Amino acid sequence: MSRVYNFSAGPSMLPEPVLKTAQAELLEYEGSGQSVMEMSHRSAVFDEIIKSTEARLRRVLRIPGNYKVGFFQGGASTQFAMVPLNLMTTGSADYFVTGNFSGLAAKEAEKFGRVHIAASSKDKNFTYIPNVKTADYSPNASYIHICQNNTIFGTRFAELPQRPGVPLVADLSSCILSGPLDVSRYGLIYFGVQKNVAPAGMAVAIIREDLLGQAGPAVPAMLNYKTIIDKESMYNTPPCWCIYMTGLVLRYIEERVGGLEAMELINTAKAALLYDYLDSQEFYKNPVEKRYRSLMNVTFTSPTPEMDKAFCTAAAEAGFVNLKGHRLVGGMRASIYNAMPHEGVAKLVQFMEDFRKANA
Amino acid sequence: MSRVYNFSAGPSMLPEPVLKTAQAELLEYEGSGQSVMEMSHRSAVFDEIIKSTEARLRRVLRIPGNYKVGFFQGGASTQFAMVPLNLMTTGSADYFVTGNFSGLAAKEAEKFGRVHIAASSKDKNFTYIPNVKTADYSPNASYIHICQNNTIFGTRFAELPQRPGVPLVADLSSCILSGPLDVSRYGLIYFGVQKNVAPAGMAVAIIREDLLGQAGPAVPAMLNYKTIIDKESMYNTPPCWCIYMTGLVLRYIEERVGGLEAMELINTAKAALLYDYLDSQEFYKNPVEKRYRSLMNVTFTSPTPEMDKAFCTAAAEAGFVNLKGHRLVGGMRASIYNAMPHEGVAKLVQFMEDFRKANA
Repeated sequence: MSRVYNFSAGPSMLPEPVLKTAQAELLEYEGSGQSVMEMSHRSAVFDEIIKSTEARLRRVLRIPGNYKVGFFQGGASTQFAMVPLNLMTTGSADYFVTGNFSGLAAKEAEKFGRVHIAASSKDKNFTYIPNVKTADYSPNASYIHICQNNTIFGTRFAELPQRPGVPLVADLSSCILSGPLDVSRYGLIYFGVQKNVAPAGMAVAIIREDLLGQAGPAVPAMLNYKTIIDKESMYNTPPCWCIYMTGLVLRYIEERVGGLEAMELINTAKAALLYDYLDSQEFYKNPVEKRYRSLMNVTFTSPTPEMDKAFCTAAAEAGFVNLKGHRLVGGMRASIYNAMPHEGVAKLVQFMEDFRKANA
Repeated sequence: MSRVYNFSAGPSMLPEPVLKTAQAELLEYEGSGQSVMEMSHRSAVFDEIIKSTEARLRRVLRIPGNYKVGFFQGGASTQFAMVPLNLMTTGSADYFVTGNFSGLAAKEAEKFGRVHIAASSKDKNFTYIPNVKTADYSPNASYIHICQNNTIFGTRFAELPQRPGVPLVADLSSCILSGPLDVSRYGLIYFGVQKNVAPAGMAVAIIREDLLGQAGPAVPAMLNYKTIIDKESMYNTPPCWCIYMTGLVLRYIEERVGGLEAMELINTAKAALLYDYLDSQEFYKNPVEKRYRSLMNVTFTSPTPEMDKAFCTAAAEAGFVNLKGHRLVGGMRASIYNAMPHEGVAKLVQFMEDFRKANA
């Protein structure tokens, strides 16, 4: 077997020890005589899996007691509708548009109330995170929405916007578990698991409990945070396999990595390796303002679109796959989530330098 | 390893050869260097998986060309909202209430329009499927909704309700792929995959194309059939692992079972084994009118609730798990979906007879 270095923006690499555990347990989970994929979600054996997964998430992220955790389906795209359906109590909300998904979130929210764009970085093709003055906010926003790490454009918020009394709602799909987080600064955090946690098919929401129970009577049961959270994510059959895999990844972070502080050190070093190389030469360029550079998604271009294409082809042949940039940006993008080993980035940098020498 | 006979109503057993394939391919799918759980959903290798899965489903179910197939998240419970949000164009619909889930579907639909209960079998605790006269239908229903197999009560429709010009919408979560189906008799079929197809975390909808595009502007993008189907289930990241597992199960049905006609023969024989035994003695009883007995979920009781409890405990110790009936019915329920081997039912019948002899 020859595993590749997969730089996909999501779904993306999973830690190999986690995959090996899943493989070993695939036909029989811990003496239960069943695969996790076959278990009744109401059985004692699955109950232990879902409860321990939530407990691990609470420990790893240090989630305060006044926050509830729910496991949902439909990805962050469904959360884009759930946020306004559950939280837009004043009829309006403030959105930051700093990339593709934050724009989609704002567009979806417009179906349910007034969306005020507090700030946008569209003027420079989303290569920075805009500053916001108090006057830019609307006077009666129910919440402020951000996408904290912009997967496509390779940026991240350096500081969080904060307004007293206005909950901050954040899509953390592409940076969750990459380092420690102060959950108490948010009203609601949500993330699709398929980038930095587990296989695609689940979103997790972490919500301050006073924000629950505000959905109107015509909100679908499955889009009401309270429905799912009141039933401890068992209102209907949950995505059991994703929950199990999330638990395995969290166990890996706790027991093998040593928690999110250690994870952040690893990620910072990994990203520095690539950014330092990018800044050391002129062949490749990264367009992002340095303080807003993402630790998870690193964009770069070679001198021409034709060269970009040749780079991606040669890289794939050398075992570095999914490096093509998003069509909105062009060039290349290396997504270096938690599960990408340091060695993968080091080898990519070496490959980039060899390619540069051959083509400069 | 010692695998049990798992009679769970869902999630439930998967064919062992399918699990073995998933296990063998877990770290690397067909020379791609990646697990299916790690693949970019936009990659060529996953594109082949999703396209071949849909193609297999179309072949196995003989889906006519004027029907579209979509892979969704959120289970049948999300479909309960999607159906009225997309199809209740006249402001009303007719619902059959023949069990728990059909009742939940009707309740959810009431949020979005007028729900007329065309028929209910609640009077006899859902032990039969009611007949419906033309006068029972409402004059301007947008559609008729049924749950074709009632998992909890162990019943199924013997004939389908049909009204000219009114689309039939059916939840087939607990009987899909159990035998051949005439898709052309339905406007919309939907099913959660976790009972008879794949691990939990996906619902499939098969919809006649003229019924697409009727959702109003305030319907969440992820709850609009057209959004998902226009993008061939790739509007956002789909539940890739569930799609892959669905493909493996469909391949198993095509290549090892020999299609749905063969599957139905196997299922009919399996169910007959259990029902014939139930009808041959007085210790256990099944309350369902014979012509409405489900092939998938077989309910039965012993003489007393205490005996039921003793039965379930002894059965679990003998390797027959998840036989406890739903709290709405009590007693026992054996869910004998496609993946339950004939041998599992034969051994259960032997166990039941031994238990009867010891306790009668």
